[in-house]
Amino acid sequence: MAMTGVLRPGHAQIRVLDIDESIAWYTDVMGLVPMGRDAQGRAYFKTRQERDHHSIVLRQADRAGLDFFGFKVRDAQTLQALEAKLIAYGVKTERIAAGDMPGTGERVRFRIPTGHHIELYADKQHVGNATGCVNPEVDVIDGPGICPIRMDHCLIYGGDIDGSRAIFEDVLGFNLVERVKLEDGVTDLATWLTCSAKAHDIAMVRHGEDDKLHHVSFQLASWEQVLRAADIMSRNRVSIDIGPTRHGITTGTTIYFFDPSGNRLETFCGGYDHYPDMEPITWTFDEVGAGIFYHDRKLNPAFLEVVT
Amino acid sequence: MAMTGVLRPGHAQIRVLDIDESIAWYTDVMGLVPMGRDAQGRAYFKTRQERDHHSIVLRQADRAGLDFFGFKVRDAQTLQALEAKLIAYGVKTERIAAGDMPGTGERVRFRIPTGHHIELYADKQHVGNATGCVNPEVDVIDGPGICPIRMDHCLIYGGDIDGSRAIFEDVLGFNLVERVKLEDGVTDLATWLTCSAKAHDIAMVRHGEDDKLHHVSFQLASWEQVLRAADIMSRNRVSIDIGPTRHGITTGTTIYFFDPSGNRLETFCGGYDHYPDMEPITWTFDEVGAGIFYHDRKLNPAFLEVVT
Amino acid sequence: MAMTGVLRPGHAQIRVLDIDESIAWYTDVMGLVPMGRDAQGRAYFKTRQERDHHSIVLRQADRAGLDFFGFKVRDAQTLQALEAKLIAYGVKTERIAAGDMPGTGERVRFRIPTGHHIELYADKQHVGNATGCVNPEVDVIDGPGICPIRMDHCLIYGGDIDGSRAIFEDVLGFNLVERVKLEDGVTDLATWLTCSAKAHDIAMVRHGEDDKLHHVSFQLASWEQVLRAADIMSRNRVSIDIGPTRHGITTGTTIYFFDPSGNRLETFCGGYDHYPDMEPITWTFDEVGAGIFYHDRKLNPAFLEVVT
Amino acid sequence: MAMTGVLRPGHAQIRVLDIDESIAWYTDVMGLVPMGRDAQGRAYFKTRQERDHHSIVLRQADRAGLDFFGFKVRDAQTLQALEAKLIAYGVKTERIAAGDMPGTGERVRFRIPTGHHIELYADKQHVGNATGCVNPEVDVIDGPGICPIRMDHCLIYGGDIDGSRAIFEDVLGFNLVERVKLEDGVTDLATWLTCSAKAHDIAMVRHGEDDKLHHVSFQLASWEQVLRAADIMSRNRVSIDIGPTRHGITTGTTIYFFDPSGNRLETFCGGYDHYPDMEPITWTFDEVGAGIFYHDRKLNPAFLEVVT
Repeated sequence: MAMTGVLRPGHAQIRVLDIDESIAWYTDVMGLVPMGRDAQGRAYFKTRQERDHHSIVLRQADRAGLDFFGFKVRDAQTLQALEAKLIAYGVKTERIAAGDMPGTGERVRFRIPTGHHIELYADKQHVGNATGCVNPEVDVIDGPGICPIRMDHCLIYGGDIDGSRAIFEDVLGFNLVERVKLEDGVTDLATWLTCSAKAHDIAMVRHGEDDKLHHVSFQLASWEQVLRAADIMSRNRVSIDIGPTRHGITTGTTIYFFDPSGNRLETFCGGYDHYPDMEPITWTFDEVGAGIFYHDRKLNPAFLEVVT
Repeated sequence: MAMTGVLRPGHAQIRVLDIDESIAWYTDVMGLVPMGRDAQGRAYFKTRQERDHHSIVLRQADRAGLDFFGFKVRDAQTLQALEAKLIAYGVKTERIAAGDMPGTGERVRFRIPTGHHIELYADKQHVGNATGCVNPEVDVIDGPGICPIRMDHCLIYGGDIDGSRAIFEDVLGFNLVERVKLEDGVTDLATWLTCSAKAHDIAMVRHGEDDKLHHVSFQLASWEQVLRAADIMSRNRVSIDIGPTRHGITTGTTIYFFDPSGNRLETFCGGYDHYPDMEPITWTFDEVGAGIFYHDRKLNPAFLEVVT
Repeated sequence: MAMTGVLRPGHAQIRVLDIDESIAWYTDVMGLVPMGRDAQGRAYFKTRQERDHHSIVLRQADRAGLDFFGFKVRDAQTLQALEAKLIAYGVKTERIAAGDMPGTGERVRFRIPTGHHIELYADKQHVGNATGCVNPEVDVIDGPGICPIRMDHCLIYGGDIDGSRAIFEDVLGFNLVERVKLEDGVTDLATWLTCSAKAHDIAMVRHGEDDKLHHVSFQLASWEQVLRAADIMSRNRVSIDIGPTRHGITTGTTIYFFDPSGNRLETFCGGYDHYPDMEPITWTFDEVGAGIFYHDRKLNPAFLEVVT
Repeated sequence: MAMTGVLRPGHAQIRVLDIDESIAWYTDVMGLVPMGRDAQGRAYFKTRQERDHHSIVLRQADRAGLDFFGFKVRDAQTLQALEAKLIAYGVKTERIAAGDMPGTGERVRFRIPTGHHIELYADKQHVGNATGCVNPEVDVIDGPGICPIRMDHCLIYGGDIDGSRAIFEDVLGFNLVERVKLEDGVTDLATWLTCSAKAHDIAMVRHGEDDKLHHVSFQLASWEQVLRAADIMSRNRVSIDIGPTRHGITTGTTIYFFDPSGNRLETFCGGYDHYPDMEPITWTFDEVGAGIFYHDRKLNPAFLEVVT
């Protein structure tokens, strides 16, 4: 009753240029657990602490980017109800058959006005995490690789972020947590939304081109784990975009970096709890620099322009 | 739609033996923000980051303990609906008038089988936090005092924890996150419940006497803040029960300590996200020591026996 | 017998453009303890944990930079002996009278080949630190300001770093800890030297102009304190040069930033113990980027060019 | 000139009851690097970051404890000079032949008044550390095991700690950093000494029985590494004596725990720099509890009584 509807981000299908190189990299550098490949050649991964079958799907393609981003909903009944609401709202949905992804039930897929494909699903195989459900030991994060806690959220770029936000808020029950205003003080440059009590489950930035990915983000346990991640990136010659630093928006600490195909990823820690009765935080355009990267407080062109 | 019903713990009214000494202590040592007193002499406090008027209420009395623990619900309609569900379930409710607590709307109070008084309310004045909702700076935790992020949860002791849990689960929509079994492998010694995606919003331990408080808990941002809290406690000659250490249950790091009246409080960091589709974690009785305090793995009699 | 000769960096006299603004900044933002001004108008500061009268001296001037950098030696006899060695080595020394700086005994001043003025002294008033020498409490770092542990080292720029290094090594008994080679694989671009078992007490970079300051550095207790320092800098609109990040050289974590006059300062944490029997670490020119800033591994022109 | 004489603790030979079990434990749980065994069956270990051949030596015996503790001195000439000073002071010395320990030169062994055997040596094979001396990467501490930075110091128990201290101070040039007084305010209960600028290289407690070991200590990089060490201990069912907590003495954070033979070890982080011109810190007997364990401030009988 308290947590209903859409629960959490469940999977991101990412396009990579060389699947074998990428499998090695997501395993050895990111420290994700490989969960096998399917008949189409897609590769599946989860973190050590995630309990469902997978959260990251890699698909080989001739350009990088995000195929789709999926959210787990509470149950089959919720899936049915949300699909009905989407259709009533005028959103065209399609059903992807159970088993298209290993261990995953039927998915409802739809396109949002920014051009991205979003999925909802109710069932994914509970494979369990590294520590189990009976007398679990504490998981010591000892690699190999970064070993994030969970795939946490994504930031997408596209034109009509008002339209996309409306679907998340009005149909799917997400709440607005933070927003950045353009110079006019009215138009949103960017918005951060949650379906739970996190600082963000999805975020979007207004952009000239639709269906673009800014980053997929993974949660870490501490600022010291952020440092460890940066050290592992350097040892592995990962291209770091920026960080370790802190966002003003959400107050999370962060590193942005690129996978071998040029997809931007984030490892972050922190943020705060946001409940639906709370007023969203607003950043005016003159302070967007501090909002994005709190320490240097400068507008960062790469943040606004480089996407896949 | 995603976060509905009961949102979060909202206030704990704690009995103290000397209100003036306690006001000084909760201000200077805990680092809470004093929010004034009411006509009954009760003293109100919030953390720097909490946005509602208060989360801790102190009332002078001749014995320590917890008067009641309140949860904020999403809106007035939800309050109405939950009260109706409680009544339908056979729980007797009473309405406390708006204004009985400063800045607080009408509250629905009821007694659960373990003898504790629980409240639900939909409205409390948004006074805002230390950093505001427009271009907020990062809050540097520089005291004076511990300055926790939020009042986070409580652990209560009483006889019929099955009955109390049933109300939280069946009526209020909480979910079971972890449990400890007694020697028989069937009866619960203790349960941890959430109304959101936290590791716990309330917990309860089976105990010979009803209406007892084990602790009220405050969240800290990091393990280093746990150390800082312990240092502040020592400088201020606060009686530390145990810690810094780590719980196996929730994996949070922790210090238990006592306010000047002997009420046990906790400052903790960590825990993990729990969603309603996840299987609860079970601790068998032979591993309860590791569950409660992970590092020494020994059953701790004081944890099970000392309550107010 | 084990720690003899030169003990540690003791003071840096820094030129500032506006002494009043600088006093406020070093007090409120850096969190140094103001120790008064002298008849010449110079302002004195120490950290909370330093026990001697001062470590930072500010002098108003029309250009920023470093007047001199002083080291404390073990005793008056050592001062005498080191002066004799300097003279024997061909270095011209001068004696600055006791009392020229408050609480400070006679100083031996000399110029090194890179044009910098270095001082040695044996006596400075022990004013004690924030926690005292009897049953000290732990010092909780709660500001106001950054509150570093100690003034730790400086990095100077000039032409003949071989000549300056020779004096530190051959006369003053410093040891080489790390070095960066130029493209020829022979010439040193930079060297890090210690008079104790730290990773650096002074460092020098080869540069076209003599008597230049790259930075004066202050030690912090943890990577989390580095984050707190960055947050304080942002709140106070301090110009951050780079960081938080990590050096490959020394492995310390770091922020470079500027005081209101444009003098670069550093807050850092970490490094490793270096003893005189250990082989120095060498960085080849192709890896100098990773040596200076480990995470992005890129040669940073500002690091090599911006000095006062 | 600055670091002369005795440089640092170099090795501890520890008696264990079952050498094979102990080799596995020091490798897998402590995360030390095994460096082989000698003809006598002794097993050698170093940390990943130590550069000399070994720092821990295990010898199978029928009771636990410390055979001897060795310090590295600057060079052969220093060894000669210190031996001469010891003899002149009335201390009987013996020379252990080069090669008695693998990779180790001649050692000067002597007995101090508390009954312990102390060694000095000038040469031990430089085998290098995990990251090398040319363009070193940062060492990511990813186990297996605790992986401390270095063997750091030991605490010994015996009767005549004044006599032992006199040898360290008067002959070997150590400096007194902290001391605890007995009720009489005159007699030392315990003293902490350094041969460098660390908070301690050796410490001693007055005790009824001679030649006893309280603990051998290993340095960790951060308070978060202390937590990781405690988690690793719990997972491996290591008996933890106390911690994580903080000492008042030195202000270091700490865990005391036992190896499989009952030898107490410590993993610690922190402490402060002590130079020979600094006044030692004194703890009066009524505050010894806070001195030893700062958070609970209680005199801990096990700390004072359990030794091997």
